[in-house]
Amino acid sequence: MNILIINGVNLSQLGTREVDIYGHTRFEDYFSTLQSMFPDVALTYFQSDKVEEIVKAIANAQGFDGIVLNPGAYTHTSIVLADAIKSVRTKVVEVHISNIFGREQFRKQSFIAPACFGSISGFGLKSYELAIRAILH
Amino acid sequence: MNILIINGVNLSQLGTREVDIYGHTRFEDYFSTLQSMFPDVALTYFQSDKVEEIVKAIANAQGFDGIVLNPGAYTHTSIVLADAIKSVRTKVVEVHISNIFGREQFRKQSFIAPACFGSISGFGLKSYELAIRAILH
Amino acid sequence: MNILIINGVNLSQLGTREVDIYGHTRFEDYFSTLQSMFPDVALTYFQSDKVEEIVKAIANAQGFDGIVLNPGAYTHTSIVLADAIKSVRTKVVEVHISNIFGREQFRKQSFIAPACFGSISGFGLKSYELAIRAILH
Amino acid sequence: MNILIINGVNLSQLGTREVDIYGHTRFEDYFSTLQSMFPDVALTYFQSDKVEEIVKAIANAQGFDGIVLNPGAYTHTSIVLADAIKSVRTKVVEVHISNIFGREQFRKQSFIAPACFGSISGFGLKSYELAIRAILH
Amino acid sequence: MNILIINGVNLSQLGTREVDIYGHTRFEDYFSTLQSMFPDVALTYFQSDKVEEIVKAIANAQGFDGIVLNPGAYTHTSIVLADAIKSVRTKVVEVHISNIFGREQFRKQSFIAPACFGSISGFGLKSYELAIRAILH
Amino acid sequence: MNILIINGVNLSQLGTREVDIYGHTRFEDYFSTLQSMFPDVALTYFQSDKVEEIVKAIANAQGFDGIVLNPGAYTHTSIVLADAIKSVRTKVVEVHISNIFGREQFRKQSFIAPACFGSISGFGLKSYELAIRAILH
Amino acid sequence: MNILIINGVNLSQLGTREVDIYGHTRFEDYFSTLQSMFPDVALTYFQSDKVEEIVKAIANAQGFDGIVLNPGAYTHTSIVLADAIKSVRTKVVEVHISNIFGREQFRKQSFIAPACFGSISGFGLKSYELAIRAILH
Amino acid sequence: MNILIINGVNLSQLGTREVDIYGHTRFEDYFSTLQSMFPDVALTYFQSDKVEEIVKAIANAQGFDGIVLNPGAYTHTSIVLADAIKSVRTKVVEVHISNIFGREQFRKQSFIAPACFGSISGFGLKSYELAIRAILH
Amino acid sequence: MNILIINGVNLSQLGTREVDIYGHTRFEDYFSTLQSMFPDVALTYFQSDKVEEIVKAIANAQGFDGIVLNPGAYTHTSIVLADAIKSVRTKVVEVHISNIFGREQFRKQSFIAPACFGSISGFGLKSYELAIRAILH
Amino acid sequence: MNILIINGVNLSQLGTREVDIYGHTRFEDYFSTLQSMFPDVALTYFQSDKVEEIVKAIANAQGFDGIVLNPGAYTHTSIVLADAIKSVRTKVVEVHISNIFGREQFRKQSFIAPACFGSISGFGLKSYELAIRAILH
Amino acid sequence: MNILIINGVNLSQLGTREVDIYGHTRFEDYFSTLQSMFPDVALTYFQSDKVEEIVKAIANAQGFDGIVLNPGAYTHTSIVLADAIKSVRTKVVEVHISNIFGREQFRKQSFIAPACFGSISGFGLKSYELAIRAILH
Amino acid sequence: MNILIINGVNLSQLGTREVDIYGHTRFEDYFSTLQSMFPDVALTYFQSDKVEEIVKAIANAQGFDGIVLNPGAYTHTSIVLADAIKSVRTKVVEVHISNIFGREQFRKQSFIAPACFGSISGFGLKSYELAIRAILH
Repeated sequence: MNILIINGVNLSQLGTREVDIYGHTRFEDYFSTLQSMFPDVALTYFQSDKVEEIVKAIANAQGFDGIVLNPGAYTHTSIVLADAIKSVRTKVVEVHISNIFGREQFRKQSFIAPACFGSISGFGLKSYELAIRAILH
Repeated sequence: MNILIINGVNLSQLGTREVDIYGHTRFEDYFSTLQSMFPDVALTYFQSDKVEEIVKAIANAQGFDGIVLNPGAYTHTSIVLADAIKSVRTKVVEVHISNIFGREQFRKQSFIAPACFGSISGFGLKSYELAIRAILH
Repeated sequence: MNILIINGVNLSQLGTREVDIYGHTRFEDYFSTLQSMFPDVALTYFQSDKVEEIVKAIANAQGFDGIVLNPGAYTHTSIVLADAIKSVRTKVVEVHISNIFGREQFRKQSFIAPACFGSISGFGLKSYELAIRAILH
Repeated sequence: MNILIINGVNLSQLGTREVDIYGHTRFEDYFSTLQSMFPDVALTYFQSDKVEEIVKAIANAQGFDGIVLNPGAYTHTSIVLADAIKSVRTKVVEVHISNIFGREQFRKQSFIAPACFGSISGFGLKSYELAIRAILH
Repeated sequence: MNILIINGVNLSQLGTREVDIYGHTRFEDYFSTLQSMFPDVALTYFQSDKVEEIVKAIANAQGFDGIVLNPGAYTHTSIVLADAIKSVRTKVVEVHISNIFGREQFRKQSFIAPACFGSISGFGLKSYELAIRAILH
Repeated sequence: MNILIINGVNLSQLGTREVDIYGHTRFEDYFSTLQSMFPDVALTYFQSDKVEEIVKAIANAQGFDGIVLNPGAYTHTSIVLADAIKSVRTKVVEVHISNIFGREQFRKQSFIAPACFGSISGFGLKSYELAIRAILH
Repeated sequence: MNILIINGVNLSQLGTREVDIYGHTRFEDYFSTLQSMFPDVALTYFQSDKVEEIVKAIANAQGFDGIVLNPGAYTHTSIVLADAIKSVRTKVVEVHISNIFGREQFRKQSFIAPACFGSISGFGLKSYELAIRAILH
Repeated sequence: MNILIINGVNLSQLGTREVDIYGHTRFEDYFSTLQSMFPDVALTYFQSDKVEEIVKAIANAQGFDGIVLNPGAYTHTSIVLADAIKSVRTKVVEVHISNIFGREQFRKQSFIAPACFGSISGFGLKSYELAIRAILH
Repeated sequence: MNILIINGVNLSQLGTREVDIYGHTRFEDYFSTLQSMFPDVALTYFQSDKVEEIVKAIANAQGFDGIVLNPGAYTHTSIVLADAIKSVRTKVVEVHISNIFGREQFRKQSFIAPACFGSISGFGLKSYELAIRAILH
Repeated sequence: MNILIINGVNLSQLGTREVDIYGHTRFEDYFSTLQSMFPDVALTYFQSDKVEEIVKAIANAQGFDGIVLNPGAYTHTSIVLADAIKSVRTKVVEVHISNIFGREQFRKQSFIAPACFGSISGFGLKSYELAIRAILH
Repeated sequence: MNILIINGVNLSQLGTREVDIYGHTRFEDYFSTLQSMFPDVALTYFQSDKVEEIVKAIANAQGFDGIVLNPGAYTHTSIVLADAIKSVRTKVVEVHISNIFGREQFRKQSFIAPACFGSISGFGLKSYELAIRAILH
Repeated sequence: MNILIINGVNLSQLGTREVDIYGHTRFEDYFSTLQSMFPDVALTYFQSDKVEEIVKAIANAQGFDGIVLNPGAYTHTSIVLADAIKSVRTKVVEVHISNIFGREQFRKQSFIAPACFGSISGFGLKSYELAIRAILH
């Protein structure tokens, strides 16, 4: 089984910025933890700040059994990303580190969630682990 | 460790109604599965169609380490339930069996999500398992 | 043939309160009239102020050929009730004693109507008789 | 007793078009059925696609004991028609063959309903029979 | 003179929960204070989390000279409760312990206030005393 | 103890205009009644139709223990007045003679209420007495 | 000088219907009065319930020095009529017998007013006289 | 007969500013013209930029047979002014020099128009003459 | 192959009115050009200002291979016309001479476009030629 | 004559994905067809998923006689792209393969259409051919 | 060169109130600093809480080369002030001490900004210095 | 002291396009002028049409004392950019060459302004100079 983890914009600096919200762990380190948690799953990690690269990564993901996607702030503005998700058969699970519903009003609109299989938010980095478990189901 | 699972309105008939959406498993049966999955966690199950009973169950849950709450359709209308969640210290995780974001427009407004610690939706009954894992974190 | 009549909140006091709008007839008396109008139909009457009891009554109504439902003010706020109607196969006809469209702005939103088979409003208690005839069709 | 039945726009082709929604019965045929159902009531039928002719028909209907009006799509756009109904004393009952509340969002706004005595929708051609019974009350 | 005090949902736990907002006084204790403040007034206290019980209490309150009602979060969602208030002749005064206008946006919509005689909010438990004085007027 | 009572626009003519809503008592006469009701409180009265004079009166009120403010129609339009209230430490209680929530839609928006300590409306001139009692608390 | 007076829908029955709003004068009679008031002006009168006939009348009015138009309820719904007014050079003055701003909310939207030279409403039949004087200017 | 003409804010500089919209005539000069047009009517002119002075002028106008009011930009924001108009029996006619409906979107909301007897806009200074004629009616 | 071209309201005067927008060519002349451009296609032209005639023309168009429809201002208000299009199998292509998206805000709502096969706007009279080519596809 | 065809995001995979909507033809193949259809026109093709590259392509297109632009989902969100179109003199024609008006509500808002010369949608790949013909005009 | 600085409502108490937002400097003191910063510019200072006085000051400012205007809370409600700015040729620069965009939702609507030449907000008292430099340009 | 100037999309062509709005000066030339105006400040210039590159530039700007940011049209759509600004400690000042408040309605929404320290718009290229002075403060 192989799963693709995609992190969108502003997520390359986890561990060094806004540590009160996102903690001190770099995603690369957490990725190792994830990989050892799931020894039988081949995990691939992709990060990009560019919506078109994420679109391409999703389009090319037919070889994967599932995608864990943290779209960052594109969640609230990108119809392009939603269209990309809708046009592949691979199951996409949306994750958020923080609880996006408890923040500003404009973060309550999501173009991504309706296009995904399911959605997990608010559990810190553990959201990714839960999303992998959801795909393994 | 002990966790309270609360199912709201219209959820007492899982397994016999709308099986194309919710499947053929009765929640009571799934609850046994859950219990055997987590042998070290004391799970308690409470179901009620009455919002005031759910409010009371949440208010009396200070002995629990976490609450897994599927509020059903109260998600979209009940400020009372949101207030109850906000007034306890016990961590509440919202779960939904289906992906509520992919349905009618009025299901996109949630009074409950901002009051919870985190939110999981769309993974069928497995949403409950993931919520328990999120609390165990 | 058997039909279930359900009256929701604030409808237990027909005949004694707001008689200028609802008239002097108690529903129990009108029910007798209805029963004698339709001697070949087994009519059952259920009234409750509690939305969860109405939900249960609808869920348990698979033995009936039709339901005549006056949801009272729940018409405008209860997604729970709408979900209950949508999840049974029994035909539900919505009735209102007064013309709800000619009243306050907030009474023009209805969660119930889209979930029902048909809708009758404005004809006083006669709305119930018309609803029964509609089901007999 | 005499009653005027008015059918608005797009209703002249009942029985031959969109038969999955409206059935195979031509209104002229159903009208005969209606007349034989109510032998003591003089029924008059008027159909027009033109809102101004319907306005005139309503204005000239003071000799009738009631009007059964299916305004078709004018329901959602015609203040003119609503004004015409409000300015006559003859009781007007609005009917719809389909349940208009279960369709597109823009069909939920009605200028006509607040101006009518009562409203019946969703029972197919039987809606007309029920409306006549409502007027006979 | 006799007055009925009704407390709605989430108000049974005054004094032990959210003490920074609502203080350390239990309502039962405050009720004694109120009674001794107004020795010539017969005060009756009723608390329920259930909207239908409050509806019934209001409907049966014709023997009282006034009702002091704290509807809690039902303020913002319950048309049913507003209808109940509108259908009795007993004067109903709405009270709130906190200033509801200084909180979340959705707390600014009130179905209850237009149905009441007057409204008092923001003065802590003293809001009840002021409401009784308003009725004694 | 000393309290400042401020009446805004259109309130200088109490007792002679719109007597069906506001009664026949001139505020000056009622003020005497108020003063004799509270012999231990120094009451000061200020009326102005000019929003900037009310702003100034509030800004200069640091010597008072409380302000009773009836902003009249400025309630619904004046951010300036709300800012003035927010920038003083003196406790401001908003009063209205009539129940503003039971009137036109545009009177339901209030810029003033969120800035005040508490709010009392609907009790006629007695609203002022209740507001003084609230401040004495 | 010659002026065209156009009355839209529902205005052919002035004098016999809704006399409490519109008075007992038939427009034909008032037209004679108007003609004798303005002996030097050639007045032409046109009434139609059909929006397309009014559109044609406006399109063909290049020989007139001005048009007095009472569009009736088309005021609030007809972009077609507004377009027709915008596409002629003849000055069009909108008149209303009643004050349309003091009525239902939906009558406050006007497609016609922005297309006209000026607007007069609320003065009964005298609105027409004032409109003629405005054109004579 | 005597009539009060009230000009609100920004109208004291007619004739010298924005002459392309308002023309070169000073209102004082036009007032003389008006007075000679209506020799049998006692005209009084009052101009103020202050909403509270206009409120007072309206409140004190019981000796007049009518008021011609050009509220300027207060039209769109002043509930205070609307309340003042509603509380006097003297007939108030709203006038505007330009056609306010053909300008910015926010100028389409009017608090003043519903409170007035009638409304005239778009005819330049002649709007005042027409308003006087309307009152003489 | 045969195609029906329908022009709606305000389009009978092409070539003589608003020539800066619509040009100097009369549609009748352009129709000849169209006919010679497509010698193998039988073109039929129908123009009406009346929405009900257009509805009838569409309903009776089953003999045609396609309809080119310029609904004029009915685009933005007519649900009736949209319903007519939806109820025929003949392919309807919407055309507009000008780019309707670059004009007033209310021209951006279209009831017609969702009911059509495709839409072409902004190319002057050439829009018709393109629509015919689209149908010939 | 030379024309630039620009395809935006998600359009590089025409022919292999969502073939039920977009068909089995790859755009590169269709491009050859287009080129042979218009032997006298120099066609250039540019595809990018990146909005900034499209912006640059438009900015650098002054040598072309026209641009055929399919912006994909950027249609509904990109003010940047609209600004780019507005700032060049080259005529831009917007095309869509599917009828965007018949899809989700959020696809009805277009920032691009008001900035373009004209718009063609719904005719499959033929939309491009029609757009070229429109430019050749 | 001479420049007029206008401070609106609530700004006369700079330095003594809300010092955490606005600092401890009185505007009079800062004005001296400004004057010494720009020895070649004649600065005039005007402060008023009254919108009509500010309107007059702007109207009489034709002798100035520029106006620096801090409208305070009138920014969000005063069309009158915006009209005054639009009707003078003197360049008006809007300044705000705090960043008004980072505050309450209702502070995001500005009637003033569209009428001004430019806008500067968020730099404390330095906003005035920057505005003067902008005018000197 | 060192300051980073960032220009967003569509700003690389200053001086050659839309010169009536933006003038004939290329930003590179203006940058030299800026540098000579502030000999003691190290200015760095960065331009990109790509939102992700601007995000990265802001994230890497911890060595700068301030950022002058002209986001172009991203102002109105990019939550991503706003998040980037909020997550750095470096002071960001938003600038616009034109007065964005005086343009289309959709340009009045800004995601960027609430995240910035202050905002300057409308002064042409001088806006940059003012922003530098604001940071030097």
